[in-house]
Amino acid sequence: METVKKVCQGDIRAASRLIRDIEDKISSAHAKIKKLFAHTGKSYIIGITGAPGAGKSTLTDALIAEVRKKNKTIGVLAVDPTSPFSGGAILGDRIRMQRHAEDEGVFIRSLATRGALGGLSQAVGEAIHVLEAMGKDIILIETVGIGQQEIDIINHAHSVIVVLVPGMGDEVQTMKAGIMEIADVFVINKADRSGAKQLHTELTSMLNCAPAAPDSWRPPIVMVGNVYKPPAFAEKIAELEQKIEEHHAYLQTSGKLVERIYRKAMVEINDALKAAILEPVMNRLRESGEMQAITERVKNREADPHSIAEEIAKRFLK
Amino acid sequence: METVKKVCQGDIRAASRLIRDIEDKISSAHAKIKKLFAHTGKSYIIGITGAPGAGKSTLTDALIAEVRKKNKTIGVLAVDPTSPFSGGAILGDRIRMQRHAEDEGVFIRSLATRGALGGLSQAVGEAIHVLEAMGKDIILIETVGIGQQEIDIINHAHSVIVVLVPGMGDEVQTMKAGIMEIADVFVINKADRSGAKQLHTELTSMLNCAPAAPDSWRPPIVMVGNVYKPPAFAEKIAELEQKIEEHHAYLQTSGKLVERIYRKAMVEINDALKAAILEPVMNRLRESGEMQAITERVKNREADPHSIAEEIAKRFLK
Repeated sequence: METVKKVCQGDIRAASRLIRDIEDKISSAHAKIKKLFAHTGKSYIIGITGAPGAGKSTLTDALIAEVRKKNKTIGVLAVDPTSPFSGGAILGDRIRMQRHAEDEGVFIRSLATRGALGGLSQAVGEAIHVLEAMGKDIILIETVGIGQQEIDIINHAHSVIVVLVPGMGDEVQTMKAGIMEIADVFVINKADRSGAKQLHTELTSMLNCAPAAPDSWRPPIVMVGNVYKPPAFAEKIAELEQKIEEHHAYLQTSGKLVERIYRKAMVEINDALKAAILEPVMNRLRESGEMQAITERVKNREADPHSIAEEIAKRFLK
Repeated sequence: METVKKVCQGDIRAASRLIRDIEDKISSAHAKIKKLFAHTGKSYIIGITGAPGAGKSTLTDALIAEVRKKNKTIGVLAVDPTSPFSGGAILGDRIRMQRHAEDEGVFIRSLATRGALGGLSQAVGEAIHVLEAMGKDIILIETVGIGQQEIDIINHAHSVIVVLVPGMGDEVQTMKAGIMEIADVFVINKADRSGAKQLHTELTSMLNCAPAAPDSWRPPIVMVGNVYKPPAFAEKIAELEQKIEEHHAYLQTSGKLVERIYRKAMVEINDALKAAILEPVMNRLRESGEMQAITERVKNREADPHSIAEEIAKRFLK
């Protein structure tokens, strides 16, 4: 297992190729990930999510610099759930992060996927294993939005940053319900815009209303201003990094880190079960031509999808 | 099957209760949907999607009024993929649509879901069946974003409207790659904002670049301005409704409607197979306590998720 050895030595080319193979669902990648698995579990994983245009890439870029100041190595995975159809678009703003390209302590990759069936979450889990095996101290996963798929992705992280911006319209407000459940640290980005203070107030009152145990973590809110005002911006990024460290410390002392690691393992098992149980059934139905026949029957209203699926389950499940 | 009969007669309470049961995963709902299935497939289904804050609800509201002018009945399903954790938040801007509450030809419901495993797409498919059985001429599905899950949802539609707004940041640009694949009609909303013209130009050049067969559909772009300028706004909504009808006519004459119906059936079968094959396995693992044991082993790096899943697949699959 030459690749495995190389990845564990931090070889960038071997790691890049393996991540690409994961993305492309090359079957040999699975065997390599299995071998890597024993070398994983030592990195601290941070998720960062928010609506499109919230400025996540700028924050990621600044966080990389902040983490590097402390001499920690970092791996960044920019997950793009919007490009399953485009065949893996490289996000334009990845380019901004190129200033870290010369730094050996930084490894940045973007990830998209062609497969359905929750394949993206599995690919993210596997790509994280590659970065862990490389020995990165910190892994940062950046993703867009907070739909169920993004929550699946973000559940691979130990600490989750949710980025909000003022003036994104009323749907952002309704998003908060879901956000409250996943955020460990809030960032109000572009906080020099009008409406930032109001957003802070709303968020604070939502946090006040949330039922909380006495020893529970209250997500702090970090107000990050304009990136073009460097000293003030840098100060806020340092504050953000500090809050993440505090959350990490909280997870450790409260015993909740074990819970998160447990949850993470569960996500990976679920993803693997989908691939191992559902995909073979689908493939057999497709190859035998039966999928086409049943689709025809459903199309013509001769049978309903439930009854067909139940009948297929009886045939395939012991 | 009292409920089924009532739903087919257009009974609002019976339909509402059934949709609620679908959302809550009440098992008796499945049996009812099976019975309803023969009465479905006659409605025209329109999907509308776009980023949060793009103004989809305002457009939906205006489209309802437009469709009603033509004396067609309409069912609206507002799907909220962001609230699986909140237990079914009602979107605040649903309230805006309440002006249609007195109109018997309009039936509006929002849908969220608690389940994982792509359950939302299945719930959407089933809720559509309820609206179809009620005899609605048009069904409008509104959802947020264009991640994989939203694409799964939108694939239940025959015609898809993608709503863009100027000045949403550069990530919107990268989204377009995915958007190009699903959009049948584009709306540039809030088109009186600066940047609208540029967005139109960019979109047009993307459409020009896309490889197209001579008889293929070129998605039109409708520029919709400020809702507070009623005559101009209404004119644009009429244009939008016209474009959807043209797309419908195109699908019919080109034979592509059958393809869409086929694709829709496939989505429903996939969803049903997930529920029928993967869920029983998961449940058995949970009930026997094995899920906990394997999670523990993965957490401790004693076994990797892939190997465990393959071993489980051998035991459960024939």
